[in-house]
Amino acid sequence: MLAAHYAGNRTMTVGESEPSPPEPGQVQISVAYNGICGTDLHILSGHMDARVAASAIIGHEMSGTISALGEGVEGWAIGDPVTVMPLAWDGTCPACLAGNRHICQNLDFVGIDSPGALQGRWNVDAGLLVSLPASLSLQHAALVEPTAVAVHDVRRAELEPGQKAVVIGGGPIGVLIASVARSFGGEVVVIELDSKRRERIAELGFTVLDARDDTVAWVEEWTQGAGADVVFEVSGAAAAVLGAVDYAKVRGTLVVVAIHPEPRPVNLQRVFWRELRLLGARVYQREDFDTAVALLDSGEIPADALITKTVPLAEIQSAFDALTGGEAMKILIDVQAGQEI
Amino acid sequence: MLAAHYAGNRTMTVGESEPSPPEPGQVQISVAYNGICGTDLHILSGHMDARVAASAIIGHEMSGTISALGEGVEGWAIGDPVTVMPLAWDGTCPACLAGNRHICQNLDFVGIDSPGALQGRWNVDAGLLVSLPASLSLQHAALVEPTAVAVHDVRRAELEPGQKAVVIGGGPIGVLIASVARSFGGEVVVIELDSKRRERIAELGFTVLDARDDTVAWVEEWTQGAGADVVFEVSGAAAAVLGAVDYAKVRGTLVVVAIHPEPRPVNLQRVFWRELRLLGARVYQREDFDTAVALLDSGEIPADALITKTVPLAEIQSAFDALTGGEAMKILIDVQAGQEI
Repeated sequence: MLAAHYAGNRTMTVGESEPSPPEPGQVQISVAYNGICGTDLHILSGHMDARVAASAIIGHEMSGTISALGEGVEGWAIGDPVTVMPLAWDGTCPACLAGNRHICQNLDFVGIDSPGALQGRWNVDAGLLVSLPASLSLQHAALVEPTAVAVHDVRRAELEPGQKAVVIGGGPIGVLIASVARSFGGEVVVIELDSKRRERIAELGFTVLDARDDTVAWVEEWTQGAGADVVFEVSGAAAAVLGAVDYAKVRGTLVVVAIHPEPRPVNLQRVFWRELRLLGARVYQREDFDTAVALLDSGEIPADALITKTVPLAEIQSAFDALTGGEAMKILIDVQAGQEI
Repeated sequence: MLAAHYAGNRTMTVGESEPSPPEPGQVQISVAYNGICGTDLHILSGHMDARVAASAIIGHEMSGTISALGEGVEGWAIGDPVTVMPLAWDGTCPACLAGNRHICQNLDFVGIDSPGALQGRWNVDAGLLVSLPASLSLQHAALVEPTAVAVHDVRRAELEPGQKAVVIGGGPIGVLIASVARSFGGEVVVIELDSKRRERIAELGFTVLDARDDTVAWVEEWTQGAGADVVFEVSGAAAAVLGAVDYAKVRGTLVVVAIHPEPRPVNLQRVFWRELRLLGARVYQREDFDTAVALLDSGEIPADALITKTVPLAEIQSAFDALTGGEAMKILIDVQAGQEI
């Protein structure tokens, strides 16, 4: 089978290897599509070399069908369409014991800390499987994982129907958050610097503001002087963090979605003055995956607009290059293309 | 009557003036004691000149007895011991309409934005009065307002019995938060730089750590590797803000109590990684005052240990100087001393 490896030095290589049979309790998946996400770009850039050593098979936004069952696996059949919730927790750390297994203190993120989906046959523990409805295409299903991130963010914010949300940053996760927030009954505005992205987001029916305009005054007017109920910081920019609190109403919520490797200046005076709530949100829980599957299946997530293109596994380097250059939203890898297994 | 005025230029002056009768709906209070707080020191330093112009009568941590009733005031009698919840809201802004009147978008903080308690006879709206039990001394009752701040902070943190709390900063508000958290059933550790303060706090039965020690490792061991349920940042120091998130458990809470005039670097990576919750907490609500009165009346707040000394109104400048120099916890002003009204 063909598999894609992070080879260090900003390089992905594709090579041939022998698929292994699933261990007891595992299933083997014939991986159909794998989306590339921001974390994969971080890995390629070498920023995560301490965690992901070359040569590692990465990939965690995927869809596929079961191709073999390991010993003792029940409730699944060969041919079942599936995706994977790529979190393996220890079940014994204080976070797990307190019910927060999704952010286990010793979490194994499958596809980062252990081998991922960019291979023709992928063995995973059956407990990580998420069933897909036959009506959902495997291409759209490759968006379940990032959609689950967005569902988790919106659930964490406790956004209620009729509430107003500001999404700072209109990349794939920003658009997914905006879509989920809208499907939950929220009114949404997206703030984005890039004019092409703004155009595309407007085509999805969202109000979009240029980050260079007086967006605080706009939100003030939009909310009749109250401020937004929820602000999602998805851009990762220091200036956005500093300004994010200015959109929020008294007792409003700011969800920190983007990853900020360096400490960022936060306007704590405003946090104090308005009794704001600033929440970290990381990965997802099982119910977020279930909701994500349902939202994609119902068409409430603009999957086609998000998928810029699909390329065969052999061309994976070009996909990483295009994403690094900001030329695309989401690129899927067709993992079965060229496979002889 | 004598009244103390902020006269600009780091100076408090005491002068004679004629008391005025209460307006309709107001009561006149014979002010017994007035505590000086951090905000008063900020006013004296000139940092709040845009908000508090010389020559203003300040003071908002007080106790006293009703000395006259304005027209239409019902339910109160001359001689009743009272304190004042010094918040006047407009009732019409979005925050008020949403039920958050205590942080009204146009809040009048009585004693800052309008005349305060450092005068022999003080007229306030009857709606601001809080009744005091006869069993509570008027000296201890002067601590109701700062205790209500602490109650609000602990309530905002949703601290549950048996949970573990870290209080960063052992000044008056830090000790009050520690005391309230303990009375709510929490286990508390206080982190403080000053050795004399550490000694005094230890005498109150609290575990106290030197901020220079490896406090993160200590908390890690104390919580069996989980981290604290709640962290209160009361120090106002930038370094404390940066390190505060390291004490918190997965999904733990950090309450920002101190005022940070400048944006502070916050470790958002940790906020994200552990899905932390960072909350602003400002002033108090009515139930916080009621709880504060009850806690002081039951002796659960170490009032005598907090009150370093009581000085007559005429010596108010010396009280401000001692507090600015860090020589005292809480100093009360005996407002009736020397009054001939």
